[in-house]
Amino acid sequence: MNTGKLLALVRQRQPLVHHITNAVTISECANITLAAGGLPVMANAVEEVEEMVEQAQALVLNIGTLTREQVEAMLLAGKRANALQIPIVLDPVGVGATKMRLDVAKRLLAELKINVIKGNAAEIAILAGGRAKMLGVEAVAVSEDVELLAQNLARQSKAVVAVTGKVDLVTDGNELWEIHNGHVLMAKIVGTGCMTASVMGCFAAICHEYQQAAAAALVVLNVAAELAAERAKTPAAFKGELFDRLYALAPETVDCRQKLKIKEVQG
Amino acid sequence: MNTGKLLALVRQRQPLVHHITNAVTISECANITLAAGGLPVMANAVEEVEEMVEQAQALVLNIGTLTREQVEAMLLAGKRANALQIPIVLDPVGVGATKMRLDVAKRLLAELKINVIKGNAAEIAILAGGRAKMLGVEAVAVSEDVELLAQNLARQSKAVVAVTGKVDLVTDGNELWEIHNGHVLMAKIVGTGCMTASVMGCFAAICHEYQQAAAAALVVLNVAAELAAERAKTPAAFKGELFDRLYALAPETVDCRQKLKIKEVQG
Amino acid sequence: MNTGKLLALVRQRQPLVHHITNAVTISECANITLAAGGLPVMANAVEEVEEMVEQAQALVLNIGTLTREQVEAMLLAGKRANALQIPIVLDPVGVGATKMRLDVAKRLLAELKINVIKGNAAEIAILAGGRAKMLGVEAVAVSEDVELLAQNLARQSKAVVAVTGKVDLVTDGNELWEIHNGHVLMAKIVGTGCMTASVMGCFAAICHEYQQAAAAALVVLNVAAELAAERAKTPAAFKGELFDRLYALAPETVDCRQKLKIKEVQG
Repeated sequence: MNTGKLLALVRQRQPLVHHITNAVTISECANITLAAGGLPVMANAVEEVEEMVEQAQALVLNIGTLTREQVEAMLLAGKRANALQIPIVLDPVGVGATKMRLDVAKRLLAELKINVIKGNAAEIAILAGGRAKMLGVEAVAVSEDVELLAQNLARQSKAVVAVTGKVDLVTDGNELWEIHNGHVLMAKIVGTGCMTASVMGCFAAICHEYQQAAAAALVVLNVAAELAAERAKTPAAFKGELFDRLYALAPETVDCRQKLKIKEVQG
Repeated sequence: MNTGKLLALVRQRQPLVHHITNAVTISECANITLAAGGLPVMANAVEEVEEMVEQAQALVLNIGTLTREQVEAMLLAGKRANALQIPIVLDPVGVGATKMRLDVAKRLLAELKINVIKGNAAEIAILAGGRAKMLGVEAVAVSEDVELLAQNLARQSKAVVAVTGKVDLVTDGNELWEIHNGHVLMAKIVGTGCMTASVMGCFAAICHEYQQAAAAALVVLNVAAELAAERAKTPAAFKGELFDRLYALAPETVDCRQKLKIKEVQG
Repeated sequence: MNTGKLLALVRQRQPLVHHITNAVTISECANITLAAGGLPVMANAVEEVEEMVEQAQALVLNIGTLTREQVEAMLLAGKRANALQIPIVLDPVGVGATKMRLDVAKRLLAELKINVIKGNAAEIAILAGGRAKMLGVEAVAVSEDVELLAQNLARQSKAVVAVTGKVDLVTDGNELWEIHNGHVLMAKIVGTGCMTASVMGCFAAICHEYQQAAAAALVVLNVAAELAAERAKTPAAFKGELFDRLYALAPETVDCRQKLKIKEVQG
């Protein structure tokens, strides 16, 4: 996978990525989009989301701090995106923690064509119908094979499914890709997961092979994290460096450091 | 007070701290919770707050950017927390600046059992029925004895009351504790007060002696601020260091630097 | 223009600046207000905005993430501000991107006396009735003379109009001032525009000659950006430095670096 080339394309095309996202990490999502080479726009009002998404090259839906009105906005924007074949990335934050989150995630998957679903192991397991335990927005335990569950979810939803963790997984239901880049400090700041979805939005905008787009976004953010961790050992300092290493990341560095393994299908 | 031991316990147990909080500092509250050793979760929707707080070990209510719906969510989450004996920390941001804030704070105190109330001198004075002047969310002047007012509020509300300022006070209505740690740069960034409540949530989660929990949280954040100020002399740099010094804070450093004075009851 | 003296006055008077603003950059707006020497307060609820703005010396309205209820709050706060002659700064973020944004901006201009309108070239062009293209919240293209459009808008609205860009413009409809300070890194972080409006709020609060106030705010923030760019070459590091260089900015440095050109009226 030529990730460096995709990164260069993001920077060249500067895709507009419309986010309907949570209140906690909305600033981080906007800034990481800019650092990756895209242009962020955030708009939540049901009155304007359709018109806003029409201008975008990708839509990111994040259910981290839902409101009823925001769900309506997600459905409106999502339907308009589908009609215009604008890719949608879904980040089902905390799905399984509450009935509302599960209901909303299922409704989004039922009523919209989602192109990429990105979650932690428990979020993906729960969406796939498996058993898992969430504590707030943290994955506590997954009692089944995450790879299988991710592949099942990909087949059911016809979306590419990305599972973040020590090793990240990306599957289209057939091939299973592993990404071995990244750094433990990513778990010590709030918003890494949300930012990952934003970067996926940037890559999905310029590459409609969504398994490639999702994997490339993970590689790019993870390599930036590795470089950031060479300069900063504590979370806040690391967070600043994460933005800046992504901003300054050379395509050839990405390709050189990329650790992608393509595994056989198991299911 | 063995603050270092309590800090170690927070890190070991990683309590989930549910916040219903303001839009300005929501990201800072989440990140400081993580830096202190807890796990943050933010959820505001009336449909899910009860289910979310059930998973938490503490609930932090902050009235900094109220909406009607958020007040409903606070009451629902608070009642569920009370039923399950999950401690509640109330941060009555800007109480006294507007009638709405005073009404909401009083309603929360009337309908919920609050375990810790944390505010600046004017906020606490106003809740205690004293005279004080707020300008927006800043304490401008308090025309009565804050120690007495804090003790009165503690007795009326049966909550531990913490007053932040040059010297921080913590009282259960009987003993009055003073904390002489901290640094003036804390007042030069937005959100120090909100972050203090989050750290109190972490400590209240693992120590149900709430005077100890509130005081320990103040000591820990203030000591982190002192260490941060040794490395950074300007607000934004200080803010980054505040998170990182808290994250890296050794329990023995806390105990070594703690400046806690226990004063007699005056009222 | 004695910008250094105005900066000193902001710091001396510490004006309270009430913001009704977007969710993306609300934290940045609060922190930059503090760094400039003002006191920020954010309040959105229709129940309290009138009472809050009464205490303020300036009101900043930013339409970056509108909701219906927020529009009501803006009108209520704005009318109260007008009645009390508290200056209003309007930041019409993304106007022209959606019908809602244009309708809201026009309604605010019709129902309120706005003192300063600050936008990028496309936002100002669209408000002036000219042709321009927005992509999300980015100015893509303006097909007419921005200086003329800004002057027309200033005359129509009786507001001072500030246009941010490589060179910033400030006009009262007669004189046209150019500010040649600033740095390209300002465009690499999210929220520079929003922060500019916050700093304008601080200066409008203490100087009711609004062309001077708006220009002084631009000079001050731009000079801070120049100094920040001497210390940091990447966006996140630059952002931290921008706050800190503004906080530490000496009035004499501002006056020494100020690059203000007063042009003749063209219209």
